Amino acid sequence: MTVDRQHFRTLLAEGVAIPTVSMDPDRAADMARGAEWAAETIRSLGGEATILRTSGWPTVHGRFRAEGATRSIAIYNHLDVQPANEPEWRTEPFVLTEVGDTWYGRGATDDKGPALAALFAAARSRQAGVPLDIHFIWEFEEEIGSPNFDEALARIPGPFDSVLVSDTIWISRDVPASPLGLRGMQTFTLNLRTASHDTHSGLVGGAARNPLLELAELIAAMVDAESGRVKIPGFYDGVRQTDEATLEGFVRAGFDVERFRKAHGLTSLRDLDPRIVTQKLWTLPTMELHGLAGGYQGPGVKSAVPPWGEAKMSMRLVPDMTAEGALARVRDFVSVHHPEVEVVAGPGLEPYMCPSDAAQIPHLAAALKHAFGKEPAFVREGGSIGAVVRMARHWQCPVLFMGLSLPEHGYHAPNENFDWPMAQGGIAAFEHYFRSQGTC
Amino acid sequence: MTVDRQHFRTLLAEGVAIPTVSMDPDRAADMARGAEWAAETIRSLGGEATILRTSGWPTVHGRFRAEGATRSIAIYNHLDVQPANEPEWRTEPFVLTEVGDTWYGRGATDDKGPALAALFAAARSRQAGVPLDIHFIWEFEEEIGSPNFDEALARIPGPFDSVLVSDTIWISRDVPASPLGLRGMQTFTLNLRTASHDTHSGLVGGAARNPLLELAELIAAMVDAESGRVKIPGFYDGVRQTDEATLEGFVRAGFDVERFRKAHGLTSLRDLDPRIVTQKLWTLPTMELHGLAGGYQGPGVKSAVPPWGEAKMSMRLVPDMTAEGALARVRDFVSVHHPEVEVVAGPGLEPYMCPSDAAQIPHLAAALKHAFGKEPAFVREGGSIGAVVRMARHWQCPVLFMGLSLPEHGYHAPNENFDWPMAQGGIAAFEHYFRSQGTC
Repeated sequence: MTVDRQHFRTLLAEGVAIPTVSMDPDRAADMARGAEWAAETIRSLGGEATILRTSGWPTVHGRFRAEGATRSIAIYNHLDVQPANEPEWRTEPFVLTEVGDTWYGRGATDDKGPALAALFAAARSRQAGVPLDIHFIWEFEEEIGSPNFDEALARIPGPFDSVLVSDTIWISRDVPASPLGLRGMQTFTLNLRTASHDTHSGLVGGAARNPLLELAELIAAMVDAESGRVKIPGFYDGVRQTDEATLEGFVRAGFDVERFRKAHGLTSLRDLDPRIVTQKLWTLPTMELHGLAGGYQGPGVKSAVPPWGEAKMSMRLVPDMTAEGALARVRDFVSVHHPEVEVVAGPGLEPYMCPSDAAQIPHLAAALKHAFGKEPAFVREGGSIGAVVRMARHWQCPVLFMGLSLPEHGYHAPNENFDWPMAQGGIAAFEHYFRSQGTC
Repeated sequence: MTVDRQHFRTLLAEGVAIPTVSMDPDRAADMARGAEWAAETIRSLGGEATILRTSGWPTVHGRFRAEGATRSIAIYNHLDVQPANEPEWRTEPFVLTEVGDTWYGRGATDDKGPALAALFAAARSRQAGVPLDIHFIWEFEEEIGSPNFDEALARIPGPFDSVLVSDTIWISRDVPASPLGLRGMQTFTLNLRTASHDTHSGLVGGAARNPLLELAELIAAMVDAESGRVKIPGFYDGVRQTDEATLEGFVRAGFDVERFRKAHGLTSLRDLDPRIVTQKLWTLPTMELHGLAGGYQGPGVKSAVPPWGEAKMSMRLVPDMTAEGALARVRDFVSVHHPEVEVVAGPGLEPYMCPSDAAQIPHLAAALKHAFGKEPAFVREGGSIGAVVRMARHWQCPVLFMGLSLPEHGYHAPNENFDWPMAQGGIAAFEHYFRSQGTC
């Protein structure tokens, strides 16, 4: 075993042993211990570290100064984790367990392992005298939507030439993958009240309005359930066209429709063609109905006519849509089709797209090819990472992604794991990239 | 105060004081006490009484024999009541409180007061030597859907020339009203599963199916929310046409659209024309969505794609539809439009219609006119009373309705009440009717 691997495993085991479950309010002591450990770990590898306290859980800011550096980069990871109460765990989730090259434990791949890989690369770069100022932003609230991240952001000394986020998943182990964009998100509810209380479907049924039926009809007019296509006029006006080469790249990244279906426990998909599936996941907006509250939810059928309904919905947004614009389309449609229905907007997250001419893209490709021996595929991320758009706006710089997780690593799942080949390749990729950023 | 009124009030106060809440399993002692009191009360007025125990709450069978009688009638009431935990009660719900001619208390109008009115009339008829064998069927499970009524039914010595049910509401105090028919009911659920568990709308959204969207679209195809019209082909084939005279009678009964709207706390109705409203309430079927289970129901929006959905639905049915036939139309429609959706049927209740040539109809009209001074209106009941169809089938005889409740009596509502004018008129109407049945 190499010295590096032993050192990496020791630190990852220490990190995994601290259950930094950000959504559990009883974990305050563990969260504090996690931040202390993070700062100590950065220092032990030769960096400076500060714990930035916020109204919620802290963010740790690390820094590896380089003599004479004129360029700077920030690496974003998060050290909070999902809960690990699934009965399917085969090992203790908060004890790192090694099986061959694989390390099992909550947080191993999401996102403590990748954070340590970047940290190792920064330490090496410093020893090698790479003239790049490398900052680390290790958040502890990512899994709960980064509610207090802005407080930390304001106290991190920028600006940076770019930000590198290491918290994404390749499509397949065979091809390094880096997303160039993220979808945004806008949640909203459709609310309708037609009576003051439950009424008797025998006494009033037929004459009384039914708010759940009216909402179901409105929603059916808004979106085609079979294809997922949003039927609201003009909804796709702002959607940036995706070129053929990009779509080919998505498939080349190793996207396998059947593997995707099984991995997520889906009985079937809307489409079978990988070009269409990836487009719907990454470059097209969605409209979902997450729940219809207001009626009876228990066993069997209680036959009251419900007095109100609330449809809980969301849209995932893609470049160049805006949360405000998409919401305005919904409001306009509802005001024409059912003016009595109230649209209540939740928080909006804008979509993100790395500028296609960003100078860092070829450097990132070269670093991944150097480390993993294969030309990487540039893909997209269907989800939304709140911190990304905020950092891009705050520092007015491109944000790029160098994730080291694989589908089989079990993000947010029982038996989460990370492995030494991805860690080792990751360290090499980060080191190569840091060199390119320091000398370009 | 007349002797009758004092006696009536005393018995009603005794009855109301026993909280015979059939849906509360902790009320076993009260239910037993209620049955004992019912039997004792029948005996105290000169009848015979037996408590028929069932697997659930009992039914009390009473009988007033008449010398030389060749004809017999059964009067159906129920002595179980709704709970009374509404904060809007202004008096103790289980203490009869007299204000002028009005008596407040849970069960006063539904259905203990009307039961006592019929009982008083039977006692008088017996004293007057009316040659009619009068039976009482006092159920204690009506408010929970009469699950064990068949067990009691089998032990009541029939057959009868007719059954008279006294558990319905006039449309207005100004005009005596008697329904000639009831709607039936068929509940069902539409079930669809598209994944094994909640999935992440960022990771899978767009490609993954959404069972709530698919069910909303199916339901929107089945029923027009605005009018309530069922869009399933052939759904109305079995619906008996209603003639002009019948519709005129509905309006003449005193049906006031605005009063109806307010009484039920509805913000607006599907229609404003009383002929259309009454038709939709009484002579047309319905299709309702009572709840859509399977997604997120809490505050705000949780953006998971739900793995399954269950639409909780019902149809009210009118003559000459059958529960089986209506359900078959639904199954056929679903099997064509979304064959993956499973239709799970609940219990079915057939609609009921008194034969239009039943000899008792003119007797009932004469009795109501004699007692209340006005020609009664024959209407319909939009709800379903499980016992009615069972009694009509069991004894192969017409079932008619002589209800004594008014809209302002607050059926199933706080401050339920009954009043002496309706009790007094009711006693007279029953007595007149018993005379006509004994001598026809």
